[in-house]
Amino acid sequence: MNEFDLIKKYFNFTSKHAVLGVGDDAALIPLNKNELMAISMDTLNIGHHFTGDSDPYYLGWKSLAVNVSDIISMGGQPRYALLSISLKSLDVNWIAKFTKGIKACAKKYNIEIIGGDTNKGSTSISIAITGNVSSKNVLKRSGAIPEDEIWVTNEVGYAALHFNQHSLLPKYKESISNCLKKRSQEEFLKPQPPLEFIQDTKSMINSAIDLSDGLVGDLKHILNSSSVGAKIEINEIPMHKWFMENNQYELAMCGGEDYQILMTVPHKHHNKIQNLLKKHTLKGAMIGKITKDKKIEYSLHGKKIKLSKEGFTHFG
Amino acid sequence: MNEFDLIKKYFNFTSKHAVLGVGDDAALIPLNKNELMAISMDTLNIGHHFTGDSDPYYLGWKSLAVNVSDIISMGGQPRYALLSISLKSLDVNWIAKFTKGIKACAKKYNIEIIGGDTNKGSTSISIAITGNVSSKNVLKRSGAIPEDEIWVTNEVGYAALHFNQHSLLPKYKESISNCLKKRSQEEFLKPQPPLEFIQDTKSMINSAIDLSDGLVGDLKHILNSSSVGAKIEINEIPMHKWFMENNQYELAMCGGEDYQILMTVPHKHHNKIQNLLKKHTLKGAMIGKITKDKKIEYSLHGKKIKLSKEGFTHFG
Repeated sequence: MNEFDLIKKYFNFTSKHAVLGVGDDAALIPLNKNELMAISMDTLNIGHHFTGDSDPYYLGWKSLAVNVSDIISMGGQPRYALLSISLKSLDVNWIAKFTKGIKACAKKYNIEIIGGDTNKGSTSISIAITGNVSSKNVLKRSGAIPEDEIWVTNEVGYAALHFNQHSLLPKYKESISNCLKKRSQEEFLKPQPPLEFIQDTKSMINSAIDLSDGLVGDLKHILNSSSVGAKIEINEIPMHKWFMENNQYELAMCGGEDYQILMTVPHKHHNKIQNLLKKHTLKGAMIGKITKDKKIEYSLHGKKIKLSKEGFTHFG
Repeated sequence: MNEFDLIKKYFNFTSKHAVLGVGDDAALIPLNKNELMAISMDTLNIGHHFTGDSDPYYLGWKSLAVNVSDIISMGGQPRYALLSISLKSLDVNWIAKFTKGIKACAKKYNIEIIGGDTNKGSTSISIAITGNVSSKNVLKRSGAIPEDEIWVTNEVGYAALHFNQHSLLPKYKESISNCLKKRSQEEFLKPQPPLEFIQDTKSMINSAIDLSDGLVGDLKHILNSSSVGAKIEINEIPMHKWFMENNQYELAMCGGEDYQILMTVPHKHHNKIQNLLKKHTLKGAMIGKITKDKKIEYSLHGKKIKLSKEGFTHFG
């Protein structure tokens, strides 16, 4: 049983008043006629999402950024966050750096950290975040329509490369330049979800999801929720040229933690999306189209291919 | 450095828009002219808040109930919750019982569980909760006024007795009846924060806090926040007679996890509070008075005494 089956079977909480409950990036609570509150929570655990050596500054940044990503993918403007942190012991130097990182991220995204608690335990960081969403521009996984263009907001794969570099075959490992190594680490440590771009484009977007599980896994969430299929041109997926040159494009497509947005948009907005990506200096691209047929077709250089890897599952 | 100093020094997040930020049981966000949203988050960790043997049904109940308590102590009506759970491995039987427990608590308090995530890691449960609070009846730690009566909503000490019974001297351990043992376990496993009582009395209450750190520790939070002192009559504190008979009243006063409410109320409401406690079958009582003088005076049978123990601190 994988994570998604588990969530479905036992975490089937039903909700009468929330507009959207368990199953999207964030839940939605009605606030007033024109606004909803998006609310979400994520946890990062030592040994799984980070190690004991992880730089506490970046850990602070990332633990908030992954939550920001959930709000952005609903079309929301992040507002408030609560932090619950568990620590094995009091390391004041670590805590000072961690809080510096989380405050830097809060400042960038204009978020107020308004509460939380500290506990003794295996090191773990849980953050709950709220955001305001205009009722007119709610982005859901379920809004994709056949003929929609599928876009991704920036290059994918850096986090996966950083995380998996040590398990690559020597010939691939050796081909990673120091520059790429550094870039991958940076993207892994300090994800920067594209808030301003999504705020500028949300009225054009039909469906969206944040790339936490990996492009392939998250695309499936959109397709399942929308009861549609997709054709994906692998050559069009924005990724560092190393992946294609070394036949490692599946790593970029299936690895998680990109924290970019995968979205579907009607064709008529193509040029506007293109221009706004440029304006925000994002290397995003259109990577395919939504189809009626409920399956995914991948093409590489015009030839249909099958992927060998599947989307990352936490309990796989 | 204890937990409170730590939180003060590094977790000093400032907030422009929240009505109340870090430092109370819940933060408050403005919703509209008449209402605020109280929002709070708590984490329970294996080895600290529960053990590997803990009954998952009760763990599910308790993990939500401790959050309910935070909302109640602000005068709020709990509404929505998000669950983030970390597990070492997939034990379907455990998960089935856990979700049964959390759903039972959600039903009792009329809460909708609207989201969250599952992660691999040391077993840990984080819950974020929201509640609605009428602007007129916000309860804070800082509202206590000299001459206020200090009330506690029900008996204290059961959870502390359950948790500490094995470290008591043999003569005390042997004096615990099976009935008291069972009752202590029940109260420890299945706390029932007094939502309806606080909803009925909130307009009369000047300040409130939930008893998570223990009566002595939490009283200090009220006194510090309100810049006042208190006189406490230990005989008046509602607790099982075992504590007084065995000179263990400090265990009941300093042990945590009671999840009752400590509140201060003007004298004019004395009878109404008394009657409403009866109506809700709560064994609450008035235990002292707020004083101008910023210190705490404890009396036992009319004689001033000093306590030997201090309030529980997580990193003490």
